[in-house]
Amino acid sequence: MTRYQYLATLLAQRIEQGLWKSGEKLPSVRQLSAEHGVSISTVQQAYQVLENLQLITPQARSGYFVAPCKAQPPVPAMSRPVQRPVDVTQWDEIMTLLESRKDKTVLALGSGSPDLSQTTLKPLWRELSRQVQHNPDTVLGYDDLAGKAELRQQITRLMVDSGTLVSADDIVITSGCQGALSAALLAVCKPGDIVAVESPSFYGTMQMLRGFGIKTIEIPTDSCLGISIEALELALEQWPIKGIILVPNCNNPLGFIMPDDRKRAVVSLAQRHDIVIFEDDIYGELANDYPRPRTVKSFDIDGRVLLCSSFSKTLAPGLRVGWIAPGRYLDRVLHAKYATAGTNVPATQLAVAAFIRDGHYTRHVRRMRRVYQQNMEAWTCWVRQDFPDGICVTRPAGGYMLWIELPEQVDMVCVSRCLAKLKIQVAPGSMFSASGKYRNCLRINCAQPLTETNREALRQIGNVVYEALEDANTLTPPKAPV
Amino acid sequence: MTRYQYLATLLAQRIEQGLWKSGEKLPSVRQLSAEHGVSISTVQQAYQVLENLQLITPQARSGYFVAPCKAQPPVPAMSRPVQRPVDVTQWDEIMTLLESRKDKTVLALGSGSPDLSQTTLKPLWRELSRQVQHNPDTVLGYDDLAGKAELRQQITRLMVDSGTLVSADDIVITSGCQGALSAALLAVCKPGDIVAVESPSFYGTMQMLRGFGIKTIEIPTDSCLGISIEALELALEQWPIKGIILVPNCNNPLGFIMPDDRKRAVVSLAQRHDIVIFEDDIYGELANDYPRPRTVKSFDIDGRVLLCSSFSKTLAPGLRVGWIAPGRYLDRVLHAKYATAGTNVPATQLAVAAFIRDGHYTRHVRRMRRVYQQNMEAWTCWVRQDFPDGICVTRPAGGYMLWIELPEQVDMVCVSRCLAKLKIQVAPGSMFSASGKYRNCLRINCAQPLTETNREALRQIGNVVYEALEDANTLTPPKAPV
Ligand SMILES: Cc1ncc(COP(=O)(O)O)c(C=O)c1O
Ligand SMILES: Cc1ncc(COP(=O)(O)O)c(C=O)c1O
Repeated sequence: MTRYQYLATLLAQRIEQGLWKSGEKLPSVRQLSAEHGVSISTVQQAYQVLENLQLITPQARSGYFVAPCKAQPPVPAMSRPVQRPVDVTQWDEIMTLLESRKDKTVLALGSGSPDLSQTTLKPLWRELSRQVQHNPDTVLGYDDLAGKAELRQQITRLMVDSGTLVSADDIVITSGCQGALSAALLAVCKPGDIVAVESPSFYGTMQMLRGFGIKTIEIPTDSCLGISIEALELALEQWPIKGIILVPNCNNPLGFIMPDDRKRAVVSLAQRHDIVIFEDDIYGELANDYPRPRTVKSFDIDGRVLLCSSFSKTLAPGLRVGWIAPGRYLDRVLHAKYATAGTNVPATQLAVAAFIRDGHYTRHVRRMRRVYQQNMEAWTCWVRQDFPDGICVTRPAGGYMLWIELPEQVDMVCVSRCLAKLKIQVAPGSMFSASGKYRNCLRINCAQPLTETNREALRQIGNVVYEALEDANTLTPPKAPV
Repeated sequence: MTRYQYLATLLAQRIEQGLWKSGEKLPSVRQLSAEHGVSISTVQQAYQVLENLQLITPQARSGYFVAPCKAQPPVPAMSRPVQRPVDVTQWDEIMTLLESRKDKTVLALGSGSPDLSQTTLKPLWRELSRQVQHNPDTVLGYDDLAGKAELRQQITRLMVDSGTLVSADDIVITSGCQGALSAALLAVCKPGDIVAVESPSFYGTMQMLRGFGIKTIEIPTDSCLGISIEALELALEQWPIKGIILVPNCNNPLGFIMPDDRKRAVVSLAQRHDIVIFEDDIYGELANDYPRPRTVKSFDIDGRVLLCSSFSKTLAPGLRVGWIAPGRYLDRVLHAKYATAGTNVPATQLAVAAFIRDGHYTRHVRRMRRVYQQNMEAWTCWVRQDFPDGICVTRPAGGYMLWIELPEQVDMVCVSRCLAKLKIQVAPGSMFSASGKYRNCLRINCAQPLTETNREALRQIGNVVYEALEDANTLTPPKAPV
């Protein structure tokens, strides 16, 4: 990030946080230059960016003013999914999303990719290339079944921050978080079993349940506090549920961090009903606040939490380096991994281990936390400008996803088809439900830099949404929102 | 390989093939030097290697003679497994084998690794490092669901040699052959289904069946001709078998290549009984003879053969690049891959694609075919020298594995435990049976160069086998061999 970009995102964040109100005059170029120790032209460039983003408006001879902006929209209410075990559907929509990845001219706002353009990531691919050259035997040979010991060692060090104390022998390296969840489910469940999930929840995991013939029950989930413990308890009393999948930290798609007392409550509920918790902590390190939140596993006393994660969001998904700390299921997870996936690529593991060891990981993640937080605030502001009234937007506590709930009449599956023609890809909400709920919602990836292309794309999304809403309203009278 | 090593393996092969008989005088150093256009000292070094390997003996002032060698042992007879569906066991033995990989001082004769020391492999890791440096965005980002198009394109070109005509869109890249088989089984089978396998057969695949809760029925298999079509037919009439897993080319562990008429017969049998064929062609490119054998899939007319393979044996297992041509099951395989494994590492795919495109693949595989064939012949000769009478040894038509059947009293599980103390790892035969048959057999990996360390290791294996045989004979009177 250049100096002026940095300043622009900082100012965007202040506007978003309401430090400067709509219509208020902004500090002069000279003032800001002195305050931030940057040149006049840097400030001018930053203001130009904000003007292009329509966050501020210039007024002849009197400087810049905060552009008019609607009030902060409310957060989505507790979700109300169908609460009985179902087979997961929605594969076609996901295929459409995955297929659109192939066309590199499509703006992938529906994807889960992190920002790969930051300079703090450079030592990673330098290390990767170094490993290949200096370590060809290890790089070309079969990996150990549990994965490279040096990487497992580094992961245990990282996990301390989340209150999770495990040894390197308690960890198994997997091919991404998907590989971790896959080994976990296969080790614990069999076809026909029922597994509970948050609702909405990550479509990849739900397709995995479908792949293994496991039934899914969606549990009401609050966009700030996470899964409803009460609803979960009711479901556990009513159905023979085998386990529950939770993304408790920087949830995908809702962005919440479950408060510690709820994490504790869910563990004791699991104990009482003797079920297993599959914890997916993939975004946990990207919490806005430091130190990062605790894992559910850090409250686990009898090894019933299988903690799954990966470096796909913190570093890069192309590494395919994930891991699992399977608690009491270690042996079964090792078998499941061997049986279904075999071993992993050694090269990327060694590169990540060196990247962590040499302090690059901490530096990179520290930067990304700030970048993503600023991005999400700017995107939220754009959404307020470009979207119709009556929407709800999440206020993520980390990660880089925004979840937007539109008036019930809007069908995002149709909207996203229109957007595909404009080479803009978004993730319609129905992908995040086992049974296709949340058709009026969408998830937007805010990881990408605050460029004018992105600004313009969001404006186009807003336009198509407006049109869809108008069409719907002429066809059917508006109903109360969900 | 240096010049003298090359000459040594060539001479070893001639001795093994019986061109020079036991006790016969070998050509003089001068003669060989002229014949091969190499220096006197190169020939002397080569003879020194052969002497160290005890293939030849020097006689003062009269030159070198072929060392006394026992007659060629017979090949193993048709196997006679238990012919009913069972749950696969033997995981403990496999874990022991996999665990011993961690100790780099152990000589891994039980592993499946190819020779990674050849110079023809160098362009591969140069390419890998180049991709990382010049293509960081692609390397770090999420892969396409089906894998990199350029690699799929190159694979279709390679497959032409095996009579298999598919397009790049018919191919899905997987994490090794294990990933391919896993997606194939998950796409077609559900727990409780029965799948037939050759007997003996690769333990990794059988553990996969166990992992998915699929029952296994082992079918009698001939060490030269492959699976018994008659026995398979009988089994199909008796049990509701869903599919059959075949390694028809350079079989692991038996080394046979199924003749074309049998390949055709198995396809029409599959049609008649409407079952699926999971074809594992991982060693198919390493057939001794050129051109390489046809795939079973090349006889398939209605898309019921799912062809699985990888570059783990031809190039390097640490790449984790495999693929599947799933015929009519393409959509289900894509879902199974997405659901259980996610996407793959782009870097190694791009490196392999470039390696093939630039002609390095053909060069490397051509060399490896010759190297492995020479190795296996030298190892066979050592086995004849060091092992007791009454053994059977396969005569592999490709790959790099030898399968040795010992007198029935020898328990290779115990022998391999003794060998582990000597830091020598072999694969006991029982790993290759669903129900622990073939305890009197072992598989030896002959991929590694003909070094004195390997020569000495085989001598030690022979010693422990002799001891085990003696112990067994003093305890129980010898029975007729299997
Ligand atoms: C919540 C969640 N879990 C798992 C995954 C899969 O991660 P990976 O790419 O490491 O397999 C994702 C990726 O989008 C995710 O958002
Ligand atoms: C017959 C057979 N199939 C599959 C595999 C697994 O291959 P990969 O390492 O590509 O997953 C092996 C490896 O030993 C094998 O011998």
